[in-house]
Amino acid sequence: MKGSLIVAGLGPGGPSLVTPEVATALAGASDVVGYFPYVARVPPRPGLALHPSDNRAELERASLALRLAHEGRHVVVVSSGDPGVFAMASAVFEAMEAGPAQWRNLDVRVLPGITAMLAAAARAGAPLGHDFCAINLSDNLKPWPLIERRLRLAAEADFALALYNPRSASRPHGFARALAVLRETCGEARPVIFARAVSSADEALRVTRLGDAAPEMADMRTLVIVGSSTTRVIATDGSPWVYTPRTASLAPGE
Amino acid sequence: MKGSLIVAGLGPGGPSLVTPEVATALAGASDVVGYFPYVARVPPRPGLALHPSDNRAELERASLALRLAHEGRHVVVVSSGDPGVFAMASAVFEAMEAGPAQWRNLDVRVLPGITAMLAAAARAGAPLGHDFCAINLSDNLKPWPLIERRLRLAAEADFALALYNPRSASRPHGFARALAVLRETCGEARPVIFARAVSSADEALRVTRLGDAAPEMADMRTLVIVGSSTTRVIATDGSPWVYTPRTASLAPGE
Repeated sequence: MKGSLIVAGLGPGGPSLVTPEVATALAGASDVVGYFPYVARVPPRPGLALHPSDNRAELERASLALRLAHEGRHVVVVSSGDPGVFAMASAVFEAMEAGPAQWRNLDVRVLPGITAMLAAAARAGAPLGHDFCAINLSDNLKPWPLIERRLRLAAEADFALALYNPRSASRPHGFARALAVLRETCGEARPVIFARAVSSADEALRVTRLGDAAPEMADMRTLVIVGSSTTRVIATDGSPWVYTPRTASLAPGE
Repeated sequence: MKGSLIVAGLGPGGPSLVTPEVATALAGASDVVGYFPYVARVPPRPGLALHPSDNRAELERASLALRLAHEGRHVVVVSSGDPGVFAMASAVFEAMEAGPAQWRNLDVRVLPGITAMLAAAARAGAPLGHDFCAINLSDNLKPWPLIERRLRLAAEADFALALYNPRSASRPHGFARALAVLRETCGEARPVIFARAVSSADEALRVTRLGDAAPEMADMRTLVIVGSSTTRVIATDGSPWVYTPRTASLAPGE
């Protein structure tokens, strides 16, 4: 039997954000592989083998999935959000490149999903409506000075910023430094959005400004968006809307 | 009757990439407003008024949608991809801010969608698996020197790049200049992906290197991804996989 490997994005949490393509892939799987809270989002059924694993075990998980597919199983690797954005797809290709030559010709497909920054931006309005960057603030796999360097260059280019993995129990200090760098380069008035667990029961949205942003406003389930110099806030009777206009110009001296 | 306005992302084209949330919104709409090829993707039904309009009429279209919602209609503004990424959501908030004060307290929701870069990246592998930028190459609403400035700073920061709207009949020359800037800053060997109309019947994928990339490889339906310095290509018996590893380090001198 010829096996297959699908790397699928489950979206940010809500079932109404799972694409039909991903739902179909899960319905046809013999094995589901992934970080345990994401595997827990897949309804169990007879004949479906679930392979939950711990955080930071990405490469072992990817190798297991490739091995199972090579053995003829129909494997779905599940990621939260989009599998290609700070998630499992890169780990699968890292494992493929490092593994046996036959793995390169397995039947592999990547199915996109709604990544956290798109869900967060939609709740807040349209803060990513003009040019923007996505930066992973975790320094588990890259040196902290590289993160600071990218924050400074992105601010200089006047991108809006989507910041993934801002803060976790094992990395309590980096986000405070990131906020300090951003205050220095973008000023205190820049709009900031803290979007936690969008589309789940724990969803929470906070709109503030860089001068008032505190590290404790983020945890490992928060996606942070920092506006560009043109980002605007529209006051309403409820939570304000935040959007970045489609138009931009060069600042004097640029 | 209290109206509502939903700004919905239809995804890149294929029906299996439309989220259930967006499908439900379309089923409940009284009016659908949008650029005509996107409105054409909504199945007509009795009682549903379709309001297709031309390209570059974004603000008028947004004002029409807000006016209809204010009159008590249930309006869905449709965008291709994600409505918050170079699409209609920003135009809706621009029109809201410029319009009558009552528009600010309308029942407005933005529903995310699979934006072109996620669909393109998934087809190619995982080229956006590490930090990246999204840049709109159209100079209709910003000066060309700002685009070049952002390309240079993004290359200096070693982001992978997702380039939207690389080329159109009315802007035949910008993309050639963008490629020249990128060759100068990133070198000839950098992997480049041309992903055309992913998930539609016209889908085409081409993987090449900056030294071999030609302006004619892109049109208005193409999304271009340029790798970072760490992006890798895995040869297979078919189209190669392109991915950016999760790990990065500072280059000497940085």
